[in-house]
Amino acid sequence: MNAGSVFPDNIQKALRNNPPGEWIPEIPKDCIRLHCGYPAPALVPDEEVKAAVKSLLEEEHDLPLLYIGSPKILKLKEQIITRLKERGISVAEEELLITSGASQAIDLIARILLDEEAIVAIESPTYMEALEIFQNYTSHIISIPVDKQGLQTDVLEEILKERKQKGLTLPRLLYTIPTFQNPTGTTMTEERRQHVLMLADRYNFLIVEDDAYGELSFNKRLAMLKEMDQSSRVLHVGSLSKIVAPGMRIGWMAGTSQIIHACAWFKKDLNHPFAQAAMSVYLTKTDFNKKLVTLRDTYRSKCAVLISALEKYLPESASWYVPEGGYFVWMKVPGADTSKMLTQSLAEGVSYIPGKYFFMDQADGTEFLRLSFSYAGEKEITEGIRRLGRVVGAYL
Amino acid sequence: MNAGSVFPDNIQKALRNNPPGEWIPEIPKDCIRLHCGYPAPALVPDEEVKAAVKSLLEEEHDLPLLYIGSPKILKLKEQIITRLKERGISVAEEELLITSGASQAIDLIARILLDEEAIVAIESPTYMEALEIFQNYTSHIISIPVDKQGLQTDVLEEILKERKQKGLTLPRLLYTIPTFQNPTGTTMTEERRQHVLMLADRYNFLIVEDDAYGELSFNKRLAMLKEMDQSSRVLHVGSLSKIVAPGMRIGWMAGTSQIIHACAWFKKDLNHPFAQAAMSVYLTKTDFNKKLVTLRDTYRSKCAVLISALEKYLPESASWYVPEGGYFVWMKVPGADTSKMLTQSLAEGVSYIPGKYFFMDQADGTEFLRLSFSYAGEKEITEGIRRLGRVVGAYL
Repeated sequence: MNAGSVFPDNIQKALRNNPPGEWIPEIPKDCIRLHCGYPAPALVPDEEVKAAVKSLLEEEHDLPLLYIGSPKILKLKEQIITRLKERGISVAEEELLITSGASQAIDLIARILLDEEAIVAIESPTYMEALEIFQNYTSHIISIPVDKQGLQTDVLEEILKERKQKGLTLPRLLYTIPTFQNPTGTTMTEERRQHVLMLADRYNFLIVEDDAYGELSFNKRLAMLKEMDQSSRVLHVGSLSKIVAPGMRIGWMAGTSQIIHACAWFKKDLNHPFAQAAMSVYLTKTDFNKKLVTLRDTYRSKCAVLISALEKYLPESASWYVPEGGYFVWMKVPGADTSKMLTQSLAEGVSYIPGKYFFMDQADGTEFLRLSFSYAGEKEITEGIRRLGRVVGAYL
Repeated sequence: MNAGSVFPDNIQKALRNNPPGEWIPEIPKDCIRLHCGYPAPALVPDEEVKAAVKSLLEEEHDLPLLYIGSPKILKLKEQIITRLKERGISVAEEELLITSGASQAIDLIARILLDEEAIVAIESPTYMEALEIFQNYTSHIISIPVDKQGLQTDVLEEILKERKQKGLTLPRLLYTIPTFQNPTGTTMTEERRQHVLMLADRYNFLIVEDDAYGELSFNKRLAMLKEMDQSSRVLHVGSLSKIVAPGMRIGWMAGTSQIIHACAWFKKDLNHPFAQAAMSVYLTKTDFNKKLVTLRDTYRSKCAVLISALEKYLPESASWYVPEGGYFVWMKVPGADTSKMLTQSLAEGVSYIPGKYFFMDQADGTEFLRLSFSYAGEKEITEGIRRLGRVVGAYL
């Protein structure tokens, strides 16, 4: 029996975008890892998580290992609501859903809002997991370019205006990472934030604000879209992956109770009591504001090391955005094919992610690559960029 | 803005089945809990999980707290494959997907195989979470009755034959819990197992075998459908929820590499490295065959206590199946409305789940209720059934 024949059309289509095993090459073990969006190993609180689990299980025994029962599940929700409030977003208990990372939140939003006819607007480039998720639901995806001031809202407005004039369907959803964007590291200006909210009202779409990196500002912070949102159009997605540990899989979304109820209904992996309760205890025992200072100081410093190495080792034709927070630097190597160049780069012992993976039309990413300063140590970063400079120099 | 208007039709339909907050009443704290399908608290290995997390984090530090990196993620997969092999099922690495419990596995299978036109056959009654999941994808659900020998495969055959004769669409999927079924506790006979596999071949459908309770046999064990499957029609779903701890959320599915690849592609919550690695260490440190003996002895004994209390305290008109494993006893109270009766039962201090929640057409469940012997202690079970006997006696 050919099981392929039992897949419905939309599933067959989604799978065609994804032949098994097609991905960036394996990274050699001794390679300097500038590709991965992992937190710095020294900032991952393994000792603290161990202590949290010990204290949790000694206090509650079987409760956090059952389906429900641990009061810490609700506590975690309260802790996240409190933190959002400190940051300027007020949500009630029924307006927040804990998810397994931001990616599950995005998937649930797509699940309840998109069908095959729906149109989604995304940033170009954007988070590759989100790109995969949206393509699983619809093939009608509109890419809006990002520049150093974030999403180009004037381009978005032009497209919306034109579609309206022509009587074409308008997007149901805009997905944006306004702050320290993945992969470009750029931040949407306040003016553009106001503009995009105005457009959402005028053209009647919802905005998914992916704020996975929002806490990691090196200097000043801007108001989040959800803070500025007057008409309940923003679904705010957050995560502890970048500021505590991705392996715990704790993320969330905040939106209207109607949207949250719908997402909760379609979330069929149930709660994750053990991970959630352990995270709650960890947060209770942690001075989070102090931790954030350490995180920001560390990543600010690592970013500065990367930028100064780029200035020193990269040929003049290469260019990049200087981020004000987050994990990433986006680089352009004019005339290069960064996918092919990766082979030499890995041979030299430094990794990155080729730009093509962040675009709907992969050809748009040929000259770009994403560097991450989050994971590697400062000396490694400098040495990695020195090697990359050699690769780029030889390649141009 | 009315966000409801942005839900596509199929989502609106699924949500109409589920008005917010409609569920069984809150269970008072001092109530004897015969409703919940939780493992016995004394069998939940909180000490061992604490030790596993300690040992894991001392050995691997940040690795299990990152996205990938811990070798224990792969190890867990190997451990599950090894256990399946001991039980008679051979699967390769690419034929197994670790999921967040059996429920996520069922949801992913529905996601890749069902569209709104698809027909699913289910047991009646069946696992309520599975019922909810299938209704999220299609409204074409065919209920096949279960008796004390499990799924009535002759009824299934009649329906298939008739649909074929009339030129109607045939089911794409049959969902069954052949062993120690939820909620009836019944087990499909070997003869019926062979019959259903033959029907799958003849009428070209896939079988989802939910084996969440399969390890918990009180006496002899039967071959699983996946063991008997000659034509790759069985997707085997399993879980550590009932034999280790549900709060860790470790389940799996085994099927063709094509199906597993598709499910993995649509699984967008990523791996759960911390929970998976901790579970792997727990399994390494545990003599699982010994643990299974304890589990089976405990539940066999608790089941016997429940059955003997039923014989002692329930009026003659009530009837039930005597299970040979698992967690549940299914009871019929002729003429009763078990939903209404629950109010009195909770007032008397004993809980159960009204039968209606396990049926597509809830009216079919009016006279039934599910009792669980897994969670409450033996004395509590006896006292709970004494109280239930009073409630049923007064109600009839």
